[in-house]
Amino acid sequence: MTSTSIPAAPAVPTVPAAPAVPRRGALRPLGQTEVRITGGFWARRQRVNGRATLAHIESRLESEGWLPNFDLASTGTLPAGRRGREFSDSEVYKYLEALAWEIGRTSDGVLEARFRAIVARVAAAQEPDGYLNTMFGRPGQEPRWANLEWGHELYCLGHLFQAAVARERTRPGADDGLLAVARRAADLVCDVFGPDGIASICGHAEIEVGLAELARLTGDERYLAQARLFIERHGAATLAEHEWGRSYYQDDVPVREADVLRGHAVRANYLSAAAVDVAVESGDDELLDALRRQWERTIARRTYITGGQGSHHQDEAFGDDWELPADRAYSETCAGIGSIMFASRLLLADGDPRYADLVERTLYNVVATSPSAEGTAFYYANTLHERVPGVPADPEATSPRAAGALRAPWFEVSCCPPNVARTFASLDAYVATADDDGVQVQQYARAEVRTTLPDGREVAFDVETNYPEDGLVRVTVRSAGEWTLGLRVPSWAVGAALRARSADGVEEREVAPGLAEVRRRFAEGDVVELDLPVAPRVSVPDPRIDAVRGCVAIERGPEVLALESVDLAPAGLDDVEGVAVDLSSPPVERDGRVWVRVAVAPSGAHAWPYGGAPDAASPATAEVPLVAYHEWAERGPSTMRVFIPVA
Amino acid sequence: MTSTSIPAAPAVPTVPAAPAVPRRGALRPLGQTEVRITGGFWARRQRVNGRATLAHIESRLESEGWLPNFDLASTGTLPAGRRGREFSDSEVYKYLEALAWEIGRTSDGVLEARFRAIVARVAAAQEPDGYLNTMFGRPGQEPRWANLEWGHELYCLGHLFQAAVARERTRPGADDGLLAVARRAADLVCDVFGPDGIASICGHAEIEVGLAELARLTGDERYLAQARLFIERHGAATLAEHEWGRSYYQDDVPVREADVLRGHAVRANYLSAAAVDVAVESGDDELLDALRRQWERTIARRTYITGGQGSHHQDEAFGDDWELPADRAYSETCAGIGSIMFASRLLLADGDPRYADLVERTLYNVVATSPSAEGTAFYYANTLHERVPGVPADPEATSPRAAGALRAPWFEVSCCPPNVARTFASLDAYVATADDDGVQVQQYARAEVRTTLPDGREVAFDVETNYPEDGLVRVTVRSAGEWTLGLRVPSWAVGAALRARSADGVEEREVAPGLAEVRRRFAEGDVVELDLPVAPRVSVPDPRIDAVRGCVAIERGPEVLALESVDLAPAGLDDVEGVAVDLSSPPVERDGRVWVRVAVAPSGAHAWPYGGAPDAASPATAEVPLVAYHEWAERGPSTMRVFIPVA
Repeated sequence: MTSTSIPAAPAVPTVPAAPAVPRRGALRPLGQTEVRITGGFWARRQRVNGRATLAHIESRLESEGWLPNFDLASTGTLPAGRRGREFSDSEVYKYLEALAWEIGRTSDGVLEARFRAIVARVAAAQEPDGYLNTMFGRPGQEPRWANLEWGHELYCLGHLFQAAVARERTRPGADDGLLAVARRAADLVCDVFGPDGIASICGHAEIEVGLAELARLTGDERYLAQARLFIERHGAATLAEHEWGRSYYQDDVPVREADVLRGHAVRANYLSAAAVDVAVESGDDELLDALRRQWERTIARRTYITGGQGSHHQDEAFGDDWELPADRAYSETCAGIGSIMFASRLLLADGDPRYADLVERTLYNVVATSPSAEGTAFYYANTLHERVPGVPADPEATSPRAAGALRAPWFEVSCCPPNVARTFASLDAYVATADDDGVQVQQYARAEVRTTLPDGREVAFDVETNYPEDGLVRVTVRSAGEWTLGLRVPSWAVGAALRARSADGVEEREVAPGLAEVRRRFAEGDVVELDLPVAPRVSVPDPRIDAVRGCVAIERGPEVLALESVDLAPAGLDDVEGVAVDLSSPPVERDGRVWVRVAVAPSGAHAWPYGGAPDAASPATAEVPLVAYHEWAERGPSTMRVFIPVA
Repeated sequence: MTSTSIPAAPAVPTVPAAPAVPRRGALRPLGQTEVRITGGFWARRQRVNGRATLAHIESRLESEGWLPNFDLASTGTLPAGRRGREFSDSEVYKYLEALAWEIGRTSDGVLEARFRAIVARVAAAQEPDGYLNTMFGRPGQEPRWANLEWGHELYCLGHLFQAAVARERTRPGADDGLLAVARRAADLVCDVFGPDGIASICGHAEIEVGLAELARLTGDERYLAQARLFIERHGAATLAEHEWGRSYYQDDVPVREADVLRGHAVRANYLSAAAVDVAVESGDDELLDALRRQWERTIARRTYITGGQGSHHQDEAFGDDWELPADRAYSETCAGIGSIMFASRLLLADGDPRYADLVERTLYNVVATSPSAEGTAFYYANTLHERVPGVPADPEATSPRAAGALRAPWFEVSCCPPNVARTFASLDAYVATADDDGVQVQQYARAEVRTTLPDGREVAFDVETNYPEDGLVRVTVRSAGEWTLGLRVPSWAVGAALRARSADGVEEREVAPGLAEVRRRFAEGDVVELDLPVAPRVSVPDPRIDAVRGCVAIERGPEVLALESVDLAPAGLDDVEGVAVDLSSPPVERDGRVWVRVAVAPSGAHAWPYGGAPDAASPATAEVPLVAYHEWAERGPSTMRVFIPVA
C-alpha cells in the first residue's frame, strides 16, 4: 500500500512528530519517528482506527455534506445547499489531522491520496484574504465574526492549524498546501483579533492551542502572541451573558485567577492546554502555577474514576465539586481527549508522572470506551451507570449528540469520532518522553524506542509487554550507552518491583508510585523489567461524592471494570438493579476475567419509595464476572454499573 | 377594599367554584364558596400571595413587556416592540386566573379593577376570527400554527380558558368579556384542529385541560371532543423528531398505551390531568385505568420525597425509573403544580385518599417552597441538595429559568410565579370533597365548610387546627343532621386516633391511613377530633434510588425537613459537607424545632478521590436543628441537604 510518491519521514527529525512540542520544559515528547507501537492493546486500536474508523468518518463527512460544503464554497454556490452545524468544518480538519498522523505512522499511499484530495478541496474554499469557513461571510450568511459566542469560526481554524502542524511534523515540506492554507488563515486571525482588532474570543476555545502550536512549528511569534491575547481575554466578559453563565465558555474569570476547571468541559480543557503552551513558551510561571492548581482541584473533585469529566448533560459542563453522578455522567469523549491534551502538556512542563497517570486512565477508560470494537460506532457521552438497555441504531442513522445506551454510528454534533481517530493515530507520541539524560516510558505498550539525546547519545530499546492483561513490562536495550531509563509506576501500583538484568547479574528492588529510574552504562541486550501489580482492587470513593455513597468500583491495572447485565444471566438475573457486591470475599481472577461475589436483593414493589425501614429479606448470592468498562455494551443491549453498592 | 360594584358570589352555586369540576366520579370538589380557609399555614401563604405576589407579578408583566405586547397587538404595531418568549401571553392568562380566584376569595375591589383592565387589553388584541397570540400570524411574524413544536400558541390558549373558567365559576355572569374571548378562541381551535383540520397537537400540553374545563363550564361538547382529539393524537408522532426524543412532548406513545410519565414533567402532568378529565367525562375506563397505572409507577419510581418531579435540567424531564439525583433535582415548581392537577383529578374520579396524600406532600414541599416568605422571589427548580451557597439576586433582575441556589424575583421563562399564585388563590377548593352522603376533609387547615348534599341535606362544620405544627384536627359540627364525615389519614400517620365527642360521650379509636369515617346523626356542637402523629420520623429511601444510597431523610407530619448550613454554626461548621446523621439517638423536638445528632467527618484532602480505603478518623459529634425544606434559604446564602448520610 506504500506509494513511492510520499516523502519519506526524516530518520532523525529536528522536531518530534508529536502534537505538542514545547520549546521549554522538563521533558520533550518522543514523536512518531522515535516511538513505534508494535503490538498489544493500543496497536489493535490503532489498526481498527486506521482500517475502519477513518474510512467510516470520511464516508460520513461526504454523505452528511460537511466535505461537500467546501466544494459549494469554492464554486460560489453557498449559502444554498450548505449542510451541518456551525462547527462542521472542524470535523473535516480533525479528520485531516487523523489522516496526517496515520500517514506518518503507516506511510499508507491510499490515505495519502485521500489526504491530498481533501486538502485541495479545503484550499479551494479559502477566500483570497485567508478567511476560511463555509457558514459565514457570504451574501445570505451571517457576517464574519458576528457571532463569536456560537459561530465557532475560530474554533474551526484552531483544528485546521492542528491538522497542518500534524502534517508538517510527520511529512516536513510535503507539497500539499495545507500549511500555507493554515498560515494564511492564521495571519488573518492575527490581523482581525490582534491588539488593535476585535478584542474578544471564540465561544469554544481551540484557536489558542492551534495558534500556539503553529507558532512552535513555524517560529512565527505573532501566532504565539495572538494565542496569549485570546487566553488573557478569557474572563473579561467580552462574550454575551448566557443562561448557564459565562463560565460556560470560560469567560467568567481570567485563566490566571481561576481555581478550578468549570463550564463546558471540552472548552475548559482545550483552553487549559493552550494556556500551558503559552505559559511554557513565554516563561509565565504565575500562569503555569494557576493551571497546576486548577488541574489538582479538578482531578481531586470533579473527575470520574474513568478520568471522564463533565457532570451535566444540559451544558456539557463540569458540576460543582463532588457533583459526579454515575447515571447522568456526561463524561464526553472529547472532554477526555481535552483532558489528555491538558495533562500531557503539564507532564512535559513539569515531568510529574501523575499527569501521565491521568493520561493513561483517560485513554483506557474514556477514549478506548468511545469506539466500538469495529471502530464504526461511538459513545459521545460515557455514562457510568445505565439502567435502561439501549436500542440498536440503524448503521445509516445519525443520532443526536449524546443520547443512547449503545454506541451510535454518527451524530448531528459529531466531534467525537474524528477526535478519537486523531488521538489513536498519534498515540505513539504519548508513549515516551526524554530529558537531557535519558528517556521515560510514560505509557506501556509493545514498542520500539529509538532517539538521540541532545548531546548526541543514542538511546534505543524495545518494550515487550502484554499490559494491561498482565503487569510485566520488559525493556531490552538495543544499543550500548550510559543514560537513565525512567519507568512510570502508576499511583495504583503499590508494591511494584523493578529488576535490572545485565551481564553483572540481577538487581531487584521495590519501586514506589512515581518515576522509577535506572541509570547505568547499558550494554546491548540488557534487560530492565517492571512488575506492576495488576490484581483486581477495590476502590472506595471519597464520601463527599454523594452519588456513589455506599458503593465501590473494582479496578484492575489501568482498567476500570463494570458490572454488565449480560454477565448476570447465569445467576438468573437480567439487570444490574438490586445487585450488591459482597466484599467479604475479595474479587478473584479466573479464566481471564475478574469475578466478584454479589448479593441479589429481592426487588420489592413499594407504592411510595421513601419508607420507614430497609428491606430485611436476606438476599441470594452468586459469583459473577466483571467486564472492562471500555468493552461494555459490545454484546448487545444491556444495563451496566461501574460503582456497585456494597452488600 | 371591597367595592360594591362586584357581583356577589352566589351563596349556593350550582357548580362549585373550583378549578376542575367533573360531571361524573366518586367525589365532587367543594368550591371557594363552600370552603373558606380561615387561618394557619395556608392562610398565611394566601395572604402573602394576595398582598405581595400578585402585585409583584403584575409589575413584572408590565415591565417585561408581556402585558404591553397585547397593546401592541391591538394598536397594530406588532411585530415591532414585542418582548418575551413564545409563551409570554400565557403568564398574563395565569395571572388573570390567579386574580379571578383571589377576587372570588376576597371580593377585593382593587383587584377586580385590575382584572377588568387587563381583560380589556387582552380582548382588544383578539383577531376578528378569534385568534389570539401576540407572537404569531402577523406580517413579519411566523404564520399561525406553523410551529406547533415550539410555538406554544395552543398552550397559551389553554391558560386563557382556565382563566375564563375560574372567573365564571367565582363570578358567574360577570360582565367583563373574558368568557366570550375564550369561547371565540376555543371555537377557532375547534375549527382549525377539528376532525377535518390540522391533525396535530401543541408541543406543550395545556390546551386539553383548558378545553375540557371550558366544556364542563359551558356544556359545549365540541370543546370536550376537541380535547379528546388532542389527547388521542399524542403518540402519533405528528410533531417533529427531537434531540431528546418525542417523549419530550409525550408524542412518543399514545396516552392509553403508556405505562409511566416521561419527558418534560410539566407537559406530562398537564396532559395526564386533561386525560383524566376526558376519560371521566366520556366514561372511558380504559383510558382512566391507563392513567391510574401511570400515576402509580410515576409515584413509586420517579418522584422525589418532596413530591417533586423531573430529574433532568437539560430537558426539564423525568428520568428513568430510580433516577432521582438530589443535587441535580430539577423538580420544577410547575411540574409540582401539574402533579397536583393530575392527582386531584384522580382523587375526584376514584376517591382514593392516596391521591390527596400526594397533593398534600407536593403543596407543602414543592409549591410552598417556591416563593419566599415575602412572596416576591421564587424557586423555579427545587433542588434537594445544594453544595454551593447562592449569590443574592438584584431584586430588579431577571434570572435564567432554573439557575441559582437562592430564590429569584423573576425569570426569562417565568411560568412558576403565576402558577404558584393561581394555586394559592384557589387553595380553598382543595380542602374538602363531597359525595352523596357526606364530606371528606382532604387537606387540613383552619377552615369553615358549608355545603348542601345532592338530596338537600345541609352540612356545616368548622375545622380548627395548628397543623402541621401539631397533629390535632378538631371538627366542630355547626348544623344538626345525619351524614358521614370523612377525614383523610395520611399514609405516614400510623397510629392516628379519632375521637368523636357528642352529648352521648366520647368514642375513641385508632384509625389506619386512608379515609377515617364517622357516620352519625350529628348535633350542632358535636366534635370530632383526629390526632395525627406528627413526631419526626426517619424515612429510608428505596435502595434502588442510587443517588441517595446510605442516606435518610427526616420528615415531620407533611413536611420534609432539611439540614441547612446556617444552623450548623453553633457546632463550628459552615457547610453541610461531611455531616452525617447519627441514628443511635433519634430525632427529638425541642423549642419548636427538630434536632438530630450528627457526626462530622474531618474533611480530608485527597489528590485522587477514588482511594483504597475509607477514612477511619473518628468524627466529632454535635446536635443540630433541622429546618422545614420549604423554609430553606430564607436566612441568606447557605448549603443544604434533604437526604443526610447515615453515620
